[in-house]
Amino acid sequence: MADKPKKPQKLKARLPRGLEDRGPAAINATRQMVEKIREVYELYGFEPVETPTMEYTDALGKFLPDQDRPNEGVFSFQDDDEQWISLRYDLTAPLARYVAERYGTENLVLPYRSYRFGYVYRNEKPGPGRFRQFMQFDADTIGTASGGQSGAAADAEMCMMAADTMEALGIPRGSYVVKVNNRKVLDGVMESIGLGGDENAGRRLTVLRAIDKLDRLGQQGVRELLGKGRKDESGDFTKGAELEESQISKIETFVNARNAVQQPAFAHSAPGFIDDPDRKENEYNVALKIQGWLSVNFQDSKLAIEGLNELSQIARLVDSGGYENRIIIDPSVVRGLEYYTGPVYEVELLLDTKDEKGRPVRFGSVGGGGRYDGLVSRFRGEVVPATGFSIGVSRLQAALTMLGKLDTRPESGPVVVTVFDRDRVADYQKMVAALRADKIRAELYLGNPKNMGNQLKYADRRNAPCVIIQGSDEKAKGKVQIKDLVLGAGLTDTSDRDEYLKKQAEAQTEVDESELVAAVRKILARHAVTWV
Amino acid sequence: MADKPKKPQKLKARLPRGLEDRGPAAINATRQMVEKIREVYELYGFEPVETPTMEYTDALGKFLPDQDRPNEGVFSFQDDDEQWISLRYDLTAPLARYVAERYGTENLVLPYRSYRFGYVYRNEKPGPGRFRQFMQFDADTIGTASGGQSGAAADAEMCMMAADTMEALGIPRGSYVVKVNNRKVLDGVMESIGLGGDENAGRRLTVLRAIDKLDRLGQQGVRELLGKGRKDESGDFTKGAELEESQISKIETFVNARNAVQQPAFAHSAPGFIDDPDRKENEYNVALKIQGWLSVNFQDSKLAIEGLNELSQIARLVDSGGYENRIIIDPSVVRGLEYYTGPVYEVELLLDTKDEKGRPVRFGSVGGGGRYDGLVSRFRGEVVPATGFSIGVSRLQAALTMLGKLDTRPESGPVVVTVFDRDRVADYQKMVAALRADKIRAELYLGNPKNMGNQLKYADRRNAPCVIIQGSDEKAKGKVQIKDLVLGAGLTDTSDRDEYLKKQAEAQTEVDESELVAAVRKILARHAVTWV
Repeated sequence: MADKPKKPQKLKARLPRGLEDRGPAAINATRQMVEKIREVYELYGFEPVETPTMEYTDALGKFLPDQDRPNEGVFSFQDDDEQWISLRYDLTAPLARYVAERYGTENLVLPYRSYRFGYVYRNEKPGPGRFRQFMQFDADTIGTASGGQSGAAADAEMCMMAADTMEALGIPRGSYVVKVNNRKVLDGVMESIGLGGDENAGRRLTVLRAIDKLDRLGQQGVRELLGKGRKDESGDFTKGAELEESQISKIETFVNARNAVQQPAFAHSAPGFIDDPDRKENEYNVALKIQGWLSVNFQDSKLAIEGLNELSQIARLVDSGGYENRIIIDPSVVRGLEYYTGPVYEVELLLDTKDEKGRPVRFGSVGGGGRYDGLVSRFRGEVVPATGFSIGVSRLQAALTMLGKLDTRPESGPVVVTVFDRDRVADYQKMVAALRADKIRAELYLGNPKNMGNQLKYADRRNAPCVIIQGSDEKAKGKVQIKDLVLGAGLTDTSDRDEYLKKQAEAQTEVDESELVAAVRKILARHAVTWV
Repeated sequence: MADKPKKPQKLKARLPRGLEDRGPAAINATRQMVEKIREVYELYGFEPVETPTMEYTDALGKFLPDQDRPNEGVFSFQDDDEQWISLRYDLTAPLARYVAERYGTENLVLPYRSYRFGYVYRNEKPGPGRFRQFMQFDADTIGTASGGQSGAAADAEMCMMAADTMEALGIPRGSYVVKVNNRKVLDGVMESIGLGGDENAGRRLTVLRAIDKLDRLGQQGVRELLGKGRKDESGDFTKGAELEESQISKIETFVNARNAVQQPAFAHSAPGFIDDPDRKENEYNVALKIQGWLSVNFQDSKLAIEGLNELSQIARLVDSGGYENRIIIDPSVVRGLEYYTGPVYEVELLLDTKDEKGRPVRFGSVGGGGRYDGLVSRFRGEVVPATGFSIGVSRLQAALTMLGKLDTRPESGPVVVTVFDRDRVADYQKMVAALRADKIRAELYLGNPKNMGNQLKYADRRNAPCVIIQGSDEKAKGKVQIKDLVLGAGLTDTSDRDEYLKKQAEAQTEVDESELVAAVRKILARHAVTWV
């Protein structure tokens, strides 16, 4: 590279792939979403915490789904002292570092419930709707041991909070579902097909990540990833887990367990399961059924049973909280990140829509999380139990925008004070100041004032409710002209002559200079203009 | 490096230097500041825009004050295609790229007033109060040519908006000042001491940056930087501009011009200046005086006169807007960034305080900006006039915190529902849900429930207004206990026996389960607890 002669180039204004600029509508939508999520998390007693955008690479660790890619999915550089620094790829790894630094000190009250939001960065291949910078909003509870009632309560709380958040964001009940599974169950199942032990850790991860793609690739795609491998549409080949057909089919059976136990024939096939027809078909019941079903279809795995006990505890709390049908047990849920150690959850939008070409769009997962008891203990000798949940704000916003659930109307622009006489800019500026003093959004036209037509066109494009004009005639009389642009735009729709004349008169009025603010207020009220 | 054998190390939880974690008080303070700034900018008709954290390095350009350091002050890395990407070091360079991409299209209405805030990153030597990640809040107006009335109005608007913002943030009039200067005047002065022409561009920049440090280093420090160079306390040597004594003293004289023209003797020394004693001593007047003074003390420089004309136009608008004494002309203002081409402004806090060791702390500049007509044109053949202003949110927040102007009291914590009987977690969870349904911030105790004392201690440390307890006795009677922790904490201050007993009774009450929410509401009202 260094040998090539530099050739002078015109500097091109462009962004690297997978990054985007955002305008007022998107920014306002994010702001409103973040505020709503924050309110729910605060109500649950969580408190805010914020960590920097970058961390030491080793402190973040390597837990990304695509860690087999050369640059490991993160953006990294060396500091002056040659230590590697990376941009955060999620908000969980930095929290683990934060907690490890304060664990056991006065600066951390345990259990510690906290929330944070911000951009995270993934050095991945960008694609449609797949960005290299996107926003997450996380909540985590640190210091509640898994296994017992409190641990289950911490996990259940995450799921219930996720459900409440979806509804706070305007997604109606029935249009989303929180799915819960447990990595221990998954690991137990893998143990039963001969993938137990430390020596198979890598292969287990490959299997988990294959299952995790069920949503996107469908059953056949997952089959290929569990077997020899899969070539995608672009021709890229992903190596598979190299499982045999019998292993693949067992995994498939397990992933479909929820469907299996809900078949009427199930009760008879699961010895020892008490099929009480009066019993409500709730999630606790489903968890028990899966437990019975597992014992038939797989050798008893201690790990799987432990995981299912945790799942039934969660299910019981969720049911008693009135969240059944909103939070369900689903053995197909995996979550791609490597650090999960117990319950995992995923929020799925059940709504679908069509893209601009009329093709159906399923949104799938817009958030998820789980228990990661080992992440903080990387820094410490002891286990520090933790469970957390992350909302993909950018992804959810894209979905809500497509579904028309976000207000993306352009907001009303400011009142524009035009410049008729360029030597009287100070006077016009005083009018603007008077309007602002009354909390009316207003601006002075700052372009070339030569042409009044251009000024009106500008006001139009700015979506201004009205413009103020004062020429020398008006000045001499102590008057100002106010043009109501909303009424003005509506004139062309008016066919009745009297109506037209009346509206026309209203659309352009002349008032005393001292009446300017009151007159503008009247126009804003007429069109119900309010600003955020 | 690669040859050294790796030795296993315990992973240490730590942050790179110059980065910090932030807790609830700091986060809430930032949120409130940002909201107040946003309100002022919106009122002025500015609209939000957001660019990504990273950009192509060449698109950002190299305009940082410390560009002579090896890594150029920015964090950079190579993308997969070997193009260099950097984290943004300010919010102006990315805006220039944004505008250049859209200039002349339907997607950009000119003049374009916009605002944005976010973190920026500087790969600099960190120090006390000097971070490598900090927040800025910028406003910019693009497309208003300098020179004419509109251009001056755009610059004056920036200064007035800066003043309004300071007051919106609770900084009283008289405790801040917006200082205005013009790079053309500075360049004109340098021309007059033989530093004109392209061949001296580098040296001019060194001189500007030396003057810019007047605040921090004092007159002697600046003298050294203008001459041979300066050794700082740590022993680091900064190379000087190598000016001769006569040049240095001319620059010094100029920098002090504001003081000079305000001496009573001035009028007589400036031929041609109309000293009208009836004339109000406003900024327009000061600008004219400096103009007169310049013509005496320096050879007439066309550039300096042009700059002073711009300054007097701004001064006139500012004065007529009623901002005199808040926005003043000050020839010592420079701003460190290289890209400014005309008026430059700086907001200075006039408040001072003492640090924890009793030493006086002057805050100095908390924001600034200027006209940068050349920044967008780097991407295009044509000149694209632009003027902007940036508030150092992190810096201002640090100042306001030290001055006690920010509310940093810990906010009230959530109501804590304790776990008396670990088998009834679902019941306790229902109480929490009932409180939340009434918008009361509440949480279930998620630690080990063995010890009620620990639960109360936790509630105390969480700053909970009250705790809920239900043992088996209460459960049997359908009752719950509510402990008012605020009243309880006040008991020790009560010496009167009757008063003590009355308060004690109030501090722990038993109510019907169905009365729980109403009883908690009463306690919250008693202590005026509200949540953000």
